[in-house]
Amino acid sequence: MAVYIDKIAVSTNEMDIIDITSDVQSSVEKSGISAGIACIFCPGSTGAITTIEHEPGLMKDLPAALERIAPKSGYYEHEKMWHDGNGHSHVRASIIGPSITVPIEDGKLQLGTWQQIVFVECDARSRNRTLIIHVLGE
Amino acid sequence: MAVYIDKIAVSTNEMDIIDITSDVQSSVEKSGISAGIACIFCPGSTGAITTIEHEPGLMKDLPAALERIAPKSGYYEHEKMWHDGNGHSHVRASIIGPSITVPIEDGKLQLGTWQQIVFVECDARSRNRTLIIHVLGE
Amino acid sequence: MAVYIDKIAVSTNEMDIIDITSDVQSSVEKSGISAGIACIFCPGSTGAITTIEHEPGLMKDLPAALERIAPKSGYYEHEKMWHDGNGHSHVRASIIGPSITVPIEDGKLQLGTWQQIVFVECDARSRNRTLIIHVLGE
Repeated sequence: MAVYIDKIAVSTNEMDIIDITSDVQSSVEKSGISAGIACIFCPGSTGAITTIEHEPGLMKDLPAALERIAPKSGYYEHEKMWHDGNGHSHVRASIIGPSITVPIEDGKLQLGTWQQIVFVECDARSRNRTLIIHVLGE
Repeated sequence: MAVYIDKIAVSTNEMDIIDITSDVQSSVEKSGISAGIACIFCPGSTGAITTIEHEPGLMKDLPAALERIAPKSGYYEHEKMWHDGNGHSHVRASIIGPSITVPIEDGKLQLGTWQQIVFVECDARSRNRTLIIHVLGE
Repeated sequence: MAVYIDKIAVSTNEMDIIDITSDVQSSVEKSGISAGIACIFCPGSTGAITTIEHEPGLMKDLPAALERIAPKSGYYEHEKMWHDGNGHSHVRASIIGPSITVPIEDGKLQLGTWQQIVFVECDARSRNRTLIIHVLGE
């Protein structure tokens, strides 16, 4: 049993949803791990990790739902104290969550055909992000 | 330290919430792992994994909340492109998330008394699903 | 590769968001594990685990968003059957989710500067909770 650590750099704009599947698959291949799990984590409180069918329609539809949960133009106590314009970003990221765990079999991520691993940029401005991949297994 | 891989087959209807706790516990027992984690994953972008008290009331209440987040009758760009009637399904599944990790001690899943591991069928039609269980530990 | 199991006790009031980062970091140090993952789990169906910037503003803003998803004063079938006043609590907890997985490198949790690991008390009353930490790695 081994642990392999990798990083993925992504540059984002507001509400970008970035497909990182091939990067994570590449981390799995570099790890040499055949059976185990890939843990994907966003170190930062205004970004989130999930899976989605990465096609243009849903890139509009997921943000529209997040707008219902935490509207950008809503009232935020966070804004009142910090004036960084991203109260909604924090709330959205906390609800989706910072991590997922994807199974590996025969050295391959076991995703569905129309399912991609994505980073969701909830922040209100462009960011350079470093996502963390831990592959555990044998 | 070992990795044990198992699969759970479930047949679902729209917005079914299926209790898979005993199946996952059975995977843990077959693994022979006493201390570790069970990673439960849905390979597919219109289903999700979480925990809930699996009683009839909440089987109505969780879907009602998902209807507020992503109404079935809402407007979806996904629908405009693909015409498969499940834009809301993708959005709901991405927000709940595709995976959870449940701790194991003395060979038992460490769940609360009223807490079950569930698969949430967000798709708008009947599906046959194969969920993936990875048990890691010793 | 080893597994280290720890518990964190927290006493909560309704909609408390408790910063458990230093407790989890302490579990990692006790484990002696330098590279791996910390899996944090809430055994109970009315509490959730996520990350957030733990500052006073967001302690109001996240509950406000959860009130939009599952209003406390809304109608719940769960309430009709069980009369425990926490239908909204179950729904909120299931959507955030019971677990996260945080990467460890050089014996440190790899969190962002403004990102804390939190327990979200979704229940409608004070609770004494025991959260479960599993550290896996080497």
